[in-house]
Amino acid sequence: MELAKQAEKAFEIFSESAVTVHCITNYVTAIDVANMLLAAGARPIMSDEPKETADIASASSALVLNIGTLSEDKLSAMINAGQAANKSGIPVVLDPVGVGASDFRKNAAELICQSVRVSSIRANARELDVLGGFTLADGTGVDCDEESTVERVTRCAEKLGCVCAATGARDIISDGKRVITIDNGTPVLKRITGAGCMTSALAGAFSAAVGAFYGAAAAIAFMGICGELALEESGGALGRFHTALFDKAGNMDKTKFCERLKANEQG
Amino acid sequence: MELAKQAEKAFEIFSESAVTVHCITNYVTAIDVANMLLAAGARPIMSDEPKETADIASASSALVLNIGTLSEDKLSAMINAGQAANKSGIPVVLDPVGVGASDFRKNAAELICQSVRVSSIRANARELDVLGGFTLADGTGVDCDEESTVERVTRCAEKLGCVCAATGARDIISDGKRVITIDNGTPVLKRITGAGCMTSALAGAFSAAVGAFYGAAAAIAFMGICGELALEESGGALGRFHTALFDKAGNMDKTKFCERLKANEQG
Amino acid sequence: MELAKQAEKAFEIFSESAVTVHCITNYVTAIDVANMLLAAGARPIMSDEPKETADIASASSALVLNIGTLSEDKLSAMINAGQAANKSGIPVVLDPVGVGASDFRKNAAELICQSVRVSSIRANARELDVLGGFTLADGTGVDCDEESTVERVTRCAEKLGCVCAATGARDIISDGKRVITIDNGTPVLKRITGAGCMTSALAGAFSAAVGAFYGAAAAIAFMGICGELALEESGGALGRFHTALFDKAGNMDKTKFCERLKANEQG
Repeated sequence: MELAKQAEKAFEIFSESAVTVHCITNYVTAIDVANMLLAAGARPIMSDEPKETADIASASSALVLNIGTLSEDKLSAMINAGQAANKSGIPVVLDPVGVGASDFRKNAAELICQSVRVSSIRANARELDVLGGFTLADGTGVDCDEESTVERVTRCAEKLGCVCAATGARDIISDGKRVITIDNGTPVLKRITGAGCMTSALAGAFSAAVGAFYGAAAAIAFMGICGELALEESGGALGRFHTALFDKAGNMDKTKFCERLKANEQG
Repeated sequence: MELAKQAEKAFEIFSESAVTVHCITNYVTAIDVANMLLAAGARPIMSDEPKETADIASASSALVLNIGTLSEDKLSAMINAGQAANKSGIPVVLDPVGVGASDFRKNAAELICQSVRVSSIRANARELDVLGGFTLADGTGVDCDEESTVERVTRCAEKLGCVCAATGARDIISDGKRVITIDNGTPVLKRITGAGCMTSALAGAFSAAVGAFYGAAAAIAFMGICGELALEESGGALGRFHTALFDKAGNMDKTKFCERLKANEQG
Repeated sequence: MELAKQAEKAFEIFSESAVTVHCITNYVTAIDVANMLLAAGARPIMSDEPKETADIASASSALVLNIGTLSEDKLSAMINAGQAANKSGIPVVLDPVGVGASDFRKNAAELICQSVRVSSIRANARELDVLGGFTLADGTGVDCDEESTVERVTRCAEKLGCVCAATGARDIISDGKRVITIDNGTPVLKRITGAGCMTSALAGAFSAAVGAFYGAAAAIAFMGICGELALEESGGALGRFHTALFDKAGNMDKTKFCERLKANEQG
């Protein structure tokens, strides 16, 4: 399968060269995001001061914009970093955390999408609906009842002109034409904070290695497989599950990854 | 005992419906606060941007204001959120972290208490003394030597017109008339950061379910019992104790809670 | 050895009196920094609001300035705190995280060094080179190829007029005349985020007890020994290694410390 090959390639790149991921991310899960990148073999750099984010993005391999605990200043920092990332040609991942929770976040996400060429969006289905909806010219929004989630994610990717990835019981990644579905993971990942944020940061690292489409899919599968392994080790006790996630991420290799991978590619 | 009944009711509510707790909290312990809420069955949402906190509080089940790492902007965010919470009738918990450490924090806590109807304050005895003191019309302050802690907490609740909860070797919760004392917990909780912050966030969740008085008491007992169980599992090694706190919180149920509960109700 | 004696003295001071360390630090690793200080027997206080940092520094035993996730506001907070710390005579530790990553960070570090009497700088060799370089009157910078790291650290300490400590495979601490080298530690410490930040915070605590030179060395050895013990317990699995760091720090005593210490003193 192509995804397995691409993931193998990414693991090799991580082990051979420094893949630095500039994260402008919320302060709630920043430590887990940094530790997950390190465990996967990438290097995190966190900065959200508008005066330096262009410099830092320019020297990085990928940029991840996560709008949890967003502020006006962080938004400026994201625009500056995103435009610098576009200039240097590195992938930009957007995680529109809770984009439906306030007009401020929705407008901010819209501004980011207008000002920066985003390579991929990693979200849940509801967040993607909000993002896909506000770009509709006719203002009708996406009707969730009439379309399957795969169709909605694909339409969203077409409309926004970037890879869209909705994580959930079944993960769906589309670039508007091709679709990958992934059935790895465990519901326990929703009982800790930060699984989504870590996945988005990993999407930055993997996208730097193998591009936005396979990069998003590999990151999502990576996190899902770590979750499965952590569940087996911890029995689902939340503290030990959280610890085991990093054990498993740090010990992942392409053989374990490919053995566990449950993915389907169409288109 | 009434507290046990109320706690049982809260566990049922957590399992049946989404109890969302909006936390405007310090960045030091935010991840543990979020994970503890999730472990208890509630849902955290963190935001401190003044432009969105009213929206987010309005859509939440409780609001928790924690003044650790407070800034001018966070203070505005708290006032906006608190007033929105008052309008929609959800409980507001104040955690006056280190309120005696600077004039800035003291003035900020005073401003919050003046601008927002706070439902309960979860603090340690010294912090409550500062808060109780600055509201005295005669400027004399609370004389710690002449009153027992129970009397001071009760007077503080009367003066501030809200539930006051002082955690310590013995925890004291008062609404100015009724008093609950709790003897659960372990001193090891003071050897990690965030036990107080997590307790205050839990007080938000439990207050949404059963009101401010029993909500504060149930939250304090919940944290204390998790601490006892974590100590038994870890032997007090600090890293493993920290991990076990979340294991135990995630596996808590009303039976375990009621078996362990050491509380006394008066008034 | 003098370092062992000084470390023993520090452990005694931690157990007898409250050593409070005011940290103005990045939000990524703040929780680990606080928990490491607590595990070592010190007390963290985190604050970065410019309006209160002078008050808080004045009431603390040491001040630690960490420029990860620096912002304009945090920089003001640091200057205010640093000048208050100088007035009250407590040690000031600077951790110039990623100082070479942007002009903003470099200028900020320079401004701190000009406005505040820094007692010690805890960094890696590259960061020290940047800091040492920008203070050279002739603008030539430090030539890394012609000097050994020991010589560079010593020159940096001379130039900056404070203790300089470069952590790496071999740690080097110099006050411009005396040099201590330390061979404790494990490369696994680089596979988690925050080892450097925690070491710098510990340098604050130890410096409050035994001064900047032996304080920096004791902190670095403390962290290195915790890393060795954590590696033995966890086998290097990253999540368990992280947990074990705090287990080992909380259980450290002068006997274990002195048994493990691998240090060399010259000058």
